Amino acid sequence: MSDIEIARAAAIKPITEIAGRLEIPVDSLMPYGHTKAKVSLDYIDTLSEKPDGRLILVTAITPTPAGEGKTTTSVGLNDGLNKIGKKAMVCLREPSLGPCFGMKGGAAGGGYAQVIPMEDINLHFTGDFHAITSAHSLLSALIDNHIYWGNAAGFDTRRVSWRRVVDMNDRSLREITSSLGGVSNGYPREDGFDITVASEVMAIFCLSRNLEDLQERLGRVVVGYTHEREPIRAEAVLAPGPMTVLLKDALAPNLVQTLEHNPAFIHGGPFANIAHGCNSVIATRTALKLADYVVTEAGFGADLGAEKFLDIKCRSAGFSPDVVVLVATVRALKMHGGAGKDELTNENVEAVRSGCANMIRHIENLKQFGLPVVVAVNQFSADTPAELKVVADMAAEQGVKAIDASHWANGGNGTSELAQEVVKLADSGSSQFGTLYPDEMPIWDKIRTIATKLYRATRIHEQTIANPI
Amino acid sequence: MSDIEIARAAAIKPITEIAGRLEIPVDSLMPYGHTKAKVSLDYIDTLSEKPDGRLILVTAITPTPAGEGKTTTSVGLNDGLNKIGKKAMVCLREPSLGPCFGMKGGAAGGGYAQVIPMEDINLHFTGDFHAITSAHSLLSALIDNHIYWGNAAGFDTRRVSWRRVVDMNDRSLREITSSLGGVSNGYPREDGFDITVASEVMAIFCLSRNLEDLQERLGRVVVGYTHEREPIRAEAVLAPGPMTVLLKDALAPNLVQTLEHNPAFIHGGPFANIAHGCNSVIATRTALKLADYVVTEAGFGADLGAEKFLDIKCRSAGFSPDVVVLVATVRALKMHGGAGKDELTNENVEAVRSGCANMIRHIENLKQFGLPVVVAVNQFSADTPAELKVVADMAAEQGVKAIDASHWANGGNGTSELAQEVVKLADSGSSQFGTLYPDEMPIWDKIRTIATKLYRATRIHEQTIANPI
Amino acid sequence: MSDIEIARAAAIKPITEIAGRLEIPVDSLMPYGHTKAKVSLDYIDTLSEKPDGRLILVTAITPTPAGEGKTTTSVGLNDGLNKIGKKAMVCLREPSLGPCFGMKGGAAGGGYAQVIPMEDINLHFTGDFHAITSAHSLLSALIDNHIYWGNAAGFDTRRVSWRRVVDMNDRSLREITSSLGGVSNGYPREDGFDITVASEVMAIFCLSRNLEDLQERLGRVVVGYTHEREPIRAEAVLAPGPMTVLLKDALAPNLVQTLEHNPAFIHGGPFANIAHGCNSVIATRTALKLADYVVTEAGFGADLGAEKFLDIKCRSAGFSPDVVVLVATVRALKMHGGAGKDELTNENVEAVRSGCANMIRHIENLKQFGLPVVVAVNQFSADTPAELKVVADMAAEQGVKAIDASHWANGGNGTSELAQEVVKLADSGSSQFGTLYPDEMPIWDKIRTIATKLYRATRIHEQTIANPI
Amino acid sequence: MSDIEIARAAAIKPITEIAGRLEIPVDSLMPYGHTKAKVSLDYIDTLSEKPDGRLILVTAITPTPAGEGKTTTSVGLNDGLNKIGKKAMVCLREPSLGPCFGMKGGAAGGGYAQVIPMEDINLHFTGDFHAITSAHSLLSALIDNHIYWGNAAGFDTRRVSWRRVVDMNDRSLREITSSLGGVSNGYPREDGFDITVASEVMAIFCLSRNLEDLQERLGRVVVGYTHEREPIRAEAVLAPGPMTVLLKDALAPNLVQTLEHNPAFIHGGPFANIAHGCNSVIATRTALKLADYVVTEAGFGADLGAEKFLDIKCRSAGFSPDVVVLVATVRALKMHGGAGKDELTNENVEAVRSGCANMIRHIENLKQFGLPVVVAVNQFSADTPAELKVVADMAAEQGVKAIDASHWANGGNGTSELAQEVVKLADSGSSQFGTLYPDEMPIWDKIRTIATKLYRATRIHEQTIANPI
Repeated sequence: MSDIEIARAAAIKPITEIAGRLEIPVDSLMPYGHTKAKVSLDYIDTLSEKPDGRLILVTAITPTPAGEGKTTTSVGLNDGLNKIGKKAMVCLREPSLGPCFGMKGGAAGGGYAQVIPMEDINLHFTGDFHAITSAHSLLSALIDNHIYWGNAAGFDTRRVSWRRVVDMNDRSLREITSSLGGVSNGYPREDGFDITVASEVMAIFCLSRNLEDLQERLGRVVVGYTHEREPIRAEAVLAPGPMTVLLKDALAPNLVQTLEHNPAFIHGGPFANIAHGCNSVIATRTALKLADYVVTEAGFGADLGAEKFLDIKCRSAGFSPDVVVLVATVRALKMHGGAGKDELTNENVEAVRSGCANMIRHIENLKQFGLPVVVAVNQFSADTPAELKVVADMAAEQGVKAIDASHWANGGNGTSELAQEVVKLADSGSSQFGTLYPDEMPIWDKIRTIATKLYRATRIHEQTIANPI
Repeated sequence: MSDIEIARAAAIKPITEIAGRLEIPVDSLMPYGHTKAKVSLDYIDTLSEKPDGRLILVTAITPTPAGEGKTTTSVGLNDGLNKIGKKAMVCLREPSLGPCFGMKGGAAGGGYAQVIPMEDINLHFTGDFHAITSAHSLLSALIDNHIYWGNAAGFDTRRVSWRRVVDMNDRSLREITSSLGGVSNGYPREDGFDITVASEVMAIFCLSRNLEDLQERLGRVVVGYTHEREPIRAEAVLAPGPMTVLLKDALAPNLVQTLEHNPAFIHGGPFANIAHGCNSVIATRTALKLADYVVTEAGFGADLGAEKFLDIKCRSAGFSPDVVVLVATVRALKMHGGAGKDELTNENVEAVRSGCANMIRHIENLKQFGLPVVVAVNQFSADTPAELKVVADMAAEQGVKAIDASHWANGGNGTSELAQEVVKLADSGSSQFGTLYPDEMPIWDKIRTIATKLYRATRIHEQTIANPI
Repeated sequence: MSDIEIARAAAIKPITEIAGRLEIPVDSLMPYGHTKAKVSLDYIDTLSEKPDGRLILVTAITPTPAGEGKTTTSVGLNDGLNKIGKKAMVCLREPSLGPCFGMKGGAAGGGYAQVIPMEDINLHFTGDFHAITSAHSLLSALIDNHIYWGNAAGFDTRRVSWRRVVDMNDRSLREITSSLGGVSNGYPREDGFDITVASEVMAIFCLSRNLEDLQERLGRVVVGYTHEREPIRAEAVLAPGPMTVLLKDALAPNLVQTLEHNPAFIHGGPFANIAHGCNSVIATRTALKLADYVVTEAGFGADLGAEKFLDIKCRSAGFSPDVVVLVATVRALKMHGGAGKDELTNENVEAVRSGCANMIRHIENLKQFGLPVVVAVNQFSADTPAELKVVADMAAEQGVKAIDASHWANGGNGTSELAQEVVKLADSGSSQFGTLYPDEMPIWDKIRTIATKLYRATRIHEQTIANPI
Repeated sequence: MSDIEIARAAAIKPITEIAGRLEIPVDSLMPYGHTKAKVSLDYIDTLSEKPDGRLILVTAITPTPAGEGKTTTSVGLNDGLNKIGKKAMVCLREPSLGPCFGMKGGAAGGGYAQVIPMEDINLHFTGDFHAITSAHSLLSALIDNHIYWGNAAGFDTRRVSWRRVVDMNDRSLREITSSLGGVSNGYPREDGFDITVASEVMAIFCLSRNLEDLQERLGRVVVGYTHEREPIRAEAVLAPGPMTVLLKDALAPNLVQTLEHNPAFIHGGPFANIAHGCNSVIATRTALKLADYVVTEAGFGADLGAEKFLDIKCRSAGFSPDVVVLVATVRALKMHGGAGKDELTNENVEAVRSGCANMIRHIENLKQFGLPVVVAVNQFSADTPAELKVVADMAAEQGVKAIDASHWANGGNGTSELAQEVVKLADSGSSQFGTLYPDEMPIWDKIRTIATKLYRATRIHEQTIANPI
């Protein structure tokens, strides 16, 4: 059965039942149909004094075309934790409509480790991305309108840096000339559209603690420059208030369930390649209040994605992870070891061994943050015992366990051993989390720190751009 | 108290309670929070054998800056019908986000005749317009993508007639040049954005009977022309299927309540100045199954708005209205009679008498459709007995009652007399509805019929455009 | 033999010999090759005290696809005047390179009534149009440069009214967006190119008396508007000086010869459909000093072209024409009388008679300016005696002679009779030239005067444009 | 006196007199006014059997803001050669109108070593650049017209590589979107204007041997690509014929004089930074037939400019230079040696010595081409004997004479010694000219040869561009 067939065939419980297990009052749950709901911000405020659960980060080795299964493992681990009797939930990112209609497909796990209702999640879901698109577009319109009606803020029309967004993959809007058609349509400009997940509103939305914080952050966004190259911010065009009105419902986190009816928050989704790439701070914080164990994931590999999760999101929100799960697959390690994409079903112990260098480097990197690590080997049917043993041995040399996980085929039953180890490490108190650099460090020093410590660069080349705008 | 203060102060009942009065099963109700819900299309299918209620059209005299209150009267009449013991509901259009953030404000009635939750209705509501924007944008992207990947359909890139939409008032996007930035961004074109309510998808959405009909209609949309000026339709770029997927939830009608807790459908909202300007066929049809009396409104005055409602929507859906309510105000008639905008609070019986010519013309027009008419005089505090008497006398000369209605101040209590008359006319069986022209009439003859019969033109000037595209 | 074969086969004399007959000193003649020369502006200044010769305007009936031959008749008449022993010359417009490479072809007469060297004249000639293009382009560049460097004059960039020009028919430059490509390329604007002959510099060039007058006029050109809609003139961007430097050689008139070696000035060529459409004032004035009879032509028919020549050029330069030659052909009159384009070689006396209404109206119009008129019937081989007689009779009824002229076939010998009549009328002193309206008349009254007196309109519809820029 | 004052004050002789000294028949001279003339192509054809004179290349050390005076030295050397009794002439490039009206100023030598009439040369001159602009624009128009009328050649409109040109510095035209304004204006494209001297027509014009060669070369120009990325050439739009018609007069070289009335050809002017940067082959070839010694210059320093002159122009035309004059100044060498721009009037022998490394490298480079070299030290008043001695000594170490030249102050008298040495070397027969690489060498090998031999690169990095168009 394909992912979508499994998802469609699944029995799904009323979201009120899932919420009930988390003791969320019915009045604090805003339903969107019968199987999706938002948890009200007012209710979330009442949880502030509750102690936090354990925070479990799922990250991965460097991605290959072979696939690693980070989201799938996050969902499967959550099911495994529940299976062994823990009160656990998972926090994921919302998928973008644009790539979903492009070649990339949806993003709700796979096999027997999925979140449902899968189609709803991949389409409009609860309208969060539409709200973010609207808020972004409102700011765009306010800027050009401000210029049209006299330009009191003094925008240099060539230096409006706030681009537009649309939640669609549309190459023809990447670069446009706007305000054509005569005097009444404004001052022609070179402009363009990004995809909504690349909006700065998306990144801000995911880092905000509450509506006040959101509005305050929106006001600080630089949207353009004067002829003297002084920055102009969104507050200059009176945008933050109405933008926040458009985002007020969206900011409440979305509750859904896994195929095994365990709770999941899916909320926010900034582009990992240009922003921090994690689900919302509000969702993670709420999950930590509602569950004893909270699984969440970061974008791409442990260098890029985990680094941003730890240095940006955790710093900003005050989170302190208790354990890191590093997802690897034999297939991907084989590719890192030099095997071709069409040779992955043949046993190749040497390639796996050689590819484990990648895994080891990520383990070393994660230890620099003071975090205990466990490797989850996301199983495929072609994996051989000899190959799996190599992975386990290589991890063991780093003092780290590598545990096979078969959630794709077996759901939560496939991650019981992993879940036990995760709980053990998380409860051990061995985490001594620290960010890689202090926030007050100058920008070039931050870049140097990341480049040399994580990416093992020898040095960086500081290039000051003469005319950056 | 302002409209928004009244709306915010209102007690609001759970939407399940409103639905319960209409005997809609809980499972057939898809909630969006606790006070909005969609009625499932599957449930609607089960109602097909039920008899229809009476259909009451609310229209108005020619609009003036003084305001007539068509939506407010529709809401108030619904409350009046319920007040006198009838099972009634009202069907309205959804407001557009763009003008809402512009100068125009929301569109949910006024005073004590409003639909609630008013703010939600004026913002994202249940996401219908976002879905329509997404479906429209998907077609836009598919067209340019089709051209990019070889243009098998043979588009003349200068003759792509499908413009883009955004649900925002943004003058700078009215005319743009797209696909700039080099080979990989496609073939540069002159393009532009309309507001979402002006999308042809919106018009189609509101005329469709069900998802199959919607998909079929979407496939027929002309999106461009070949070099030989042959039309190319949306089906050529394989758009109808995915567009329908994006619209499948939106097509279910939205249930809310009036301030007096009477049921209201708010669903669909095509631009009255370029499309037919009425709420969705699905909402009206469902209301006719659920209630004995269904109040609905048409855009602008009785010439433009009612004509489109009758000739387009009723023809297309097979509806046959039972009675028409023509909304007038003393203020507006005074303006039609020549009074200035700042003289409207002064008694001016002669101006009212003179302005009644407008009302009479609309009564004559409506009679051409074979429909019984009642005039609703939407009261303002400055109206004097002498003025109101003139309106009643002038209407009486046409064999039509003019009834004062004070719903703005008094809610349903202010429309009891109007409701009684409406019920009497609707139940009388006196309606002999017929459209103004047969559907098979050639286009120029249709235009001539409307121009001469309704607008009283002497003749029309047929001008064939040499190069229309 | 085709026109170009006749022109190439012609013996051509050194331009110094032609100039010698006009007594122009060698030092005052700036040669461009051996058969073209400019007459120096310094020398022209020395002629101011000399008496003027007679000024003969050649105009035509309303143009038809059948062709009338205005330039050919002007050249032929000049040859005829010389043939009968008069010291005469002709003043013509320079052809434009753009249409020459388009479908229209050159403009140097035809048959045995041509000016030579024909190819040079139709190509770069002495570079006048290149100089005008350069001067125009310099102003364009100065405007955008002025805006780029701080915009001290306060241009509203949407209201730069000075378009660009190129001496080429190039549809793709009609409407462009300029200043794209980032900050350093300036402020994007909607712009476009006209053909050089449509440049306001061309019109000014042709009306200027000397370099000082030229520079002063260039300075007054409105090139844009401020945000307060105040006009900004070329002098604000310091353009007039360098523009005049670029035009200083071009302003000297160009001397060439006819096939019969009679002198001709070919100088300046504003577009008749948007400007006044005559050769330069300087050329005409110089010819009046150098010759006893000066033949010149105006654009299009006598309504549009002659009206502009008389009301604009003659008024501006202080010229007073002595006689008007109205060119007609039997073929064209036949078309005005209803004959089809493919029936023109069949005798059709009635069509000619009927078409003479056009000729008569032009005669009436010209008489309103107080000018004596003679009709020149430019002969074609298919013309029949009966047809020619009708034209003569109809003209005679207006007190005007219609004289057959066969210059296309016979050169100057074919226009002897016409030349005799022209001399008689010109020398008669019967001209009582006056413009159609005084210069101080308000603009709408001027338009009304022309529309009613020349075009026989009943009234004009004054429409003030609300937002004209 | 400034350069322009000296030029204006100069006595100037009739160009016929200058031509007479070269024994050019009057009929073969096409005058443009009295002091400029073109030498007819027909006459040039008659010279083919005459023996060639000596070819003297003037180049320079690496340019600095201090100025070297290459054109001035070329003019001065020509005057010096004539002064010592030789029949010599100089061949220079035509200046561009655009930069002339920009900040850069004209290009006709300086001090008492100038060509005149200086203002004419710097403005329209004989119209060559206008003709090139017209020919280029015609091709531009033909391409878009070809696409408009059905695009038989199959242009991918995104891949039209032929940009437009204008002979004006106009930043706002660098990048434009063309063909806007609807269907009848064609297919919108990203386009832009270069300056005329950067036109490929200019480069071709300067390399062509005659009109046939010109037309053939024009036909080969790649103007765009099909969707399959096959090149499309100018011949596909039937451009070469009409372009050649527009260029036929321009191709004849322009004869003017130096301040000392010695003959000079000024003809053609391709941009040295993107093309080969030398005057026309036709002018140089004609000069070699008319004079015993022909001085000509190449753009920039000896690495870039002389290399292109030798490897491109000489190879293409079959020229073999007899001697190279390497222009240096004490000021410039001082800058190369590390002195600041405001220290150049202070004696600094060490800086000069150090800077001579630059001179020596150029000497070495030139010797690789098998050419004898003499250094011309273009004198400034602040040069000290000690500084001049260092230059002479350092040159001597390379077996090369460095000779002081004071033409700026003294005209031909200031270059007598230089002229004597030049004659001695040129007549010595010691030139063993060979190009740096054979023409059939693959492109990357050519680049490697130049990079390593002239620029002393260790290696080059071959980077194949994946999608070059």
